[in-house]
Amino acid sequence: MQNPTACVVVIGNEILSGRTKDKNLVWLAEQLNQLGIRLMEARVIPDLEHVIVATLRECADKFTYVFTTGGIGPTHDDITAASVAKMAGVPLVVDEEAKQRLIKHYGGAEHVNEARLRMATVPQGAKLILNPVSGAPGFNIKNIYVMAGVPSIMQAMFDSMKHTLVGGEPILARTLSAFVTEGTIAKELGAIQDAAPTTDIGSYPFSRDGKLGTSIVIRCTDKNALNAATDAVHGLLAKHAEVTEE
Amino acid sequence: MQNPTACVVVIGNEILSGRTKDKNLVWLAEQLNQLGIRLMEARVIPDLEHVIVATLRECADKFTYVFTTGGIGPTHDDITAASVAKMAGVPLVVDEEAKQRLIKHYGGAEHVNEARLRMATVPQGAKLILNPVSGAPGFNIKNIYVMAGVPSIMQAMFDSMKHTLVGGEPILARTLSAFVTEGTIAKELGAIQDAAPTTDIGSYPFSRDGKLGTSIVIRCTDKNALNAATDAVHGLLAKHAEVTEE
Repeated sequence: MQNPTACVVVIGNEILSGRTKDKNLVWLAEQLNQLGIRLMEARVIPDLEHVIVATLRECADKFTYVFTTGGIGPTHDDITAASVAKMAGVPLVVDEEAKQRLIKHYGGAEHVNEARLRMATVPQGAKLILNPVSGAPGFNIKNIYVMAGVPSIMQAMFDSMKHTLVGGEPILARTLSAFVTEGTIAKELGAIQDAAPTTDIGSYPFSRDGKLGTSIVIRCTDKNALNAATDAVHGLLAKHAEVTEE
Repeated sequence: MQNPTACVVVIGNEILSGRTKDKNLVWLAEQLNQLGIRLMEARVIPDLEHVIVATLRECADKFTYVFTTGGIGPTHDDITAASVAKMAGVPLVVDEEAKQRLIKHYGGAEHVNEARLRMATVPQGAKLILNPVSGAPGFNIKNIYVMAGVPSIMQAMFDSMKHTLVGGEPILARTLSAFVTEGTIAKELGAIQDAAPTTDIGSYPFSRDGKLGTSIVIRCTDKNALNAATDAVHGLLAKHAEVTEE
């Protein structure tokens, strides 16, 4: 498939320590899917400048789009903007529009202290990603989109700029399930995958009411190929058990 | 801190498509924390051999331990064992103990067909990681630990081998919270972090009952340094609002 690709980079020690459960990856995965952008990888990395710089450098080269979440607040551990500037080889500058938005949000310039002003500081040449929730914007530079870590804010930021992303054909999916174990159907399922190279067929075991079953997910951008592969999988499963479609 | 390090590699298209929410990362993060092993990075990658091989090669070099989840079942999309063998430069072989366990689990050799036998196939020289839940084992080769993707099975596997991991001093943590915004305390908090370089101080905004607050997490392997930094943070927060400790 020729769809554009993406990587999500979750920045924050709190995810790696187990303190906070990431909620952004699943949401972004679904959004990107709808836009026809293939999410090819996700990484969770700590608040360490050299790690952020190296990760973004590698991922910006490999994928069409890189989306980061986290590390854009006012405290010492919020180092995403500085790391992106270093990676892009440009200085950090105070963005006047971002500053005015912060002043408005906090109700006066006297409330925008040095720490809060950091939230208006972006790599030179970056485009702001507006944040209707809490004033402090994200930004886009090259193919990197820097967003907040708080899910409600990240989602508002993504919604405000997703029309600027160039997607591909939406990735269509169908899911068939039956109370049959993977090992029973594995060989024939592999043959169906081999015969349908434009589809991506995944097999996922489950346990429900004490019974083992398998869900087969068929994904493809082409509706006809999707339906043909789904029919073949349906035929295979139906030899063993009743088939349900999600 | 000189603690051993780790990377978790989640293998599976179903996580990247948004279909399945990963539940293994948080659990492993907490376990590793208790063992004094610092989880430095996590990656979610697709079922593509060249990506698995390249990721494992890089991560095995960088970190003390690499833990993978997913891709060890009997179907065509379960390619973790083959990818690890390729990365390690050894052939795949049927492990006799693993085969006997499968025969016992499925109630006879006649039920262990070609597809199921794949679950007893491991890179030559790998040590089995026992799976008391469903028979099919994980394995360890070099510093790579290959486990199932189903959370209950992954957890049983980790429990069965965690005594073989060499940890460090447990990473201790204290968390203080107050209804004060990050921007208000950011500058002084940065000074506390600078004065306590052996600690790792993180700042996390929250919203509760419509009020904004901040949680400060102080982490360190040394109890005295932890308590000293926590006292300093307590003093800072208490200037602005009532402080609670989780």
